[in-house]
Amino acid sequence: MTNHEFYMDLAINNARAMKGQTDPNPLVGSVIVNDNRIVGVGAHLKTGEPHAEIHALRMAGEKARGGTIYVTLEPCSHHGRTGPCAVAIVEAGLMKVVIATLDPNPMVSGRGVKILEDAGIEVIVGIKEEASRKMNEVFNKFIVENRPFVTLKAGITLDGKIATHSSDSKWITSEEARSDVHKLRNENMAILVGVNTVIADNPELTTRIPNGRNPIRIILDSTLKIPLESKVVTDKLSETWIFTSANYDEDKKKDLEKMGISVFSTSGSKHVNPIEVMNLLGEKGISSVLIEGGGTINAAFLENKLIDKAIIYIAPKLIGGHLAPTFLEGSGFDKMADAVELIDTDFIKIGKDFKFTGYPEYKI
Amino acid sequence: MTNHEFYMDLAINNARAMKGQTDPNPLVGSVIVNDNRIVGVGAHLKTGEPHAEIHALRMAGEKARGGTIYVTLEPCSHHGRTGPCAVAIVEAGLMKVVIATLDPNPMVSGRGVKILEDAGIEVIVGIKEEASRKMNEVFNKFIVENRPFVTLKAGITLDGKIATHSSDSKWITSEEARSDVHKLRNENMAILVGVNTVIADNPELTTRIPNGRNPIRIILDSTLKIPLESKVVTDKLSETWIFTSANYDEDKKKDLEKMGISVFSTSGSKHVNPIEVMNLLGEKGISSVLIEGGGTINAAFLENKLIDKAIIYIAPKLIGGHLAPTFLEGSGFDKMADAVELIDTDFIKIGKDFKFTGYPEYKI
Repeated sequence: MTNHEFYMDLAINNARAMKGQTDPNPLVGSVIVNDNRIVGVGAHLKTGEPHAEIHALRMAGEKARGGTIYVTLEPCSHHGRTGPCAVAIVEAGLMKVVIATLDPNPMVSGRGVKILEDAGIEVIVGIKEEASRKMNEVFNKFIVENRPFVTLKAGITLDGKIATHSSDSKWITSEEARSDVHKLRNENMAILVGVNTVIADNPELTTRIPNGRNPIRIILDSTLKIPLESKVVTDKLSETWIFTSANYDEDKKKDLEKMGISVFSTSGSKHVNPIEVMNLLGEKGISSVLIEGGGTINAAFLENKLIDKAIIYIAPKLIGGHLAPTFLEGSGFDKMADAVELIDTDFIKIGKDFKFTGYPEYKI
Repeated sequence: MTNHEFYMDLAINNARAMKGQTDPNPLVGSVIVNDNRIVGVGAHLKTGEPHAEIHALRMAGEKARGGTIYVTLEPCSHHGRTGPCAVAIVEAGLMKVVIATLDPNPMVSGRGVKILEDAGIEVIVGIKEEASRKMNEVFNKFIVENRPFVTLKAGITLDGKIATHSSDSKWITSEEARSDVHKLRNENMAILVGVNTVIADNPELTTRIPNGRNPIRIILDSTLKIPLESKVVTDKLSETWIFTSANYDEDKKKDLEKMGISVFSTSGSKHVNPIEVMNLLGEKGISSVLIEGGGTINAAFLENKLIDKAIIYIAPKLIGGHLAPTFLEGSGFDKMADAVELIDTDFIKIGKDFKFTGYPEYKI
């Protein structure tokens, strides 16, 4: 590990420690080094508060002059609450700036670097870029596309089933894996399922961990057939937003709205249009969605290239059955060569199960 | 790691190095220690040659007296080519015998220990038992049940498919995983598929690695519909044995036999009876079978509790399709609680794919 990587690692670790408290801002960390000594560390703590570089500069004080600042994200060029960080770095007399990743927002990307270079400061970009990018994967997508980062979650048997042929699915994965899912719910602003899941399981779709935040519950229900006595309609544990096709029951919509449920229609004549759902969620400031749909909903999202990340819990169990459902149904691809590959894959053991993580790489 | 484990590890490593050259005998290793010094090591090299203990005793010579011998398998009590090893140990004056596992054969298990204890030697059993047992998993089953150890192999997408809905399966897994499969074929005495695989893919079912041994090709074909021009019928690269139901075409059987193919009928009226197949293979001295069947054959073997080990290569790909086949079809279990759990699981990355290994634990 080079010195650059060592200091950037420290900056990333500080940034990552703030996970969950900076939304909608990204996680950012910073370290200032002078004469081979760390003279300042900082991290962005909360939206509205100083950026990471400002905290590090304050800690370093006069010792920043002539030093090197490490920052996980390109210093900003805009006049926020504490002025542009790039200008603050110039004014503090730093000699060198080491950046993990440029600002993902194409409107401003590179502007911070320009301010620094125009002031004669040496700038190095790309140290620990991947780790920094991944740490803010949700923010990076949302800021660029104004659509939520979508994580598909499924719990499957080793033979690929999400239930038996008679629809029994309790339980496929171990308690440890199921508790890990609650962490995912806590990290995502919204959770999305199909109405058939609501009818079959009547789930709460809440986060059952101490101090957990309940995600907004998004239900896709093309004809508004959701039972009015469903927990997601009555329990008030979190907001519930229902998306329908263009052909829905106007009276049912009014009934639901009277119960405090938001109902949005999309242009699909038979099915809910998933792209419109994502666009609307983006407009409403929802930066992350966890899909816990069945195979049909999952396939609709995959076909529309809307899934950014897949987290699949694989239980070492065999259930069999040519009619038992898998987590990806629909019509499927014709040729293996058309399969969507997942990259940047990871596998860890969790309880008796295995947690697979990967990122779909869509062909254009 | 205790001293016992350290020396037993060495014995296991020596034993394991002989994999593939001791058949039908098990892998066995031995280490003799006296006064905290290793004075002898040995391993069984080849059937008909001395057992591991004899090699170690010869190396140790007079230094065996008063020492401790480690052996991965209970010393034998029968009069083979080099006499009973238990007696040789007594005669060499060892003080202590440390054994990983007792002889799996219930006819003789414990007899070696009895000879040793009757002679006043201290015997410890169970050091590194699991590792030793696993090393000889094929032998252990065959010697007890006189039926082959059955390994189910499948290559699947992350969403559990073995082909697209249009039956395209080239290729699901990476080259690295496919080359690993050839190692499995090399290690197994026979490979088993259904006739539909022969009709669809016309495979050779051979081992494509340098100095690889081709397994005997077992085809399940209830009505003898196998094309006479299939590679497994014509290529003579290995023997081909076809198993049918009770209702087969007698003329076709004669045609096949004329071409050097062995045909065996089972009592199943419509399907091949998998239990009879395994019993017959056992009678013919086949100690290991690799099943590369489709979902129907795999399910028939699982339902009959015939699968001893599952090796599933999971490709990080999504293919979708409610009609795309999985590696386990049939009717499947009704309840998740009835699922067959796999124990002693392992996961390794192989190329882009993941190789899962586990052992089905059947409920009685």
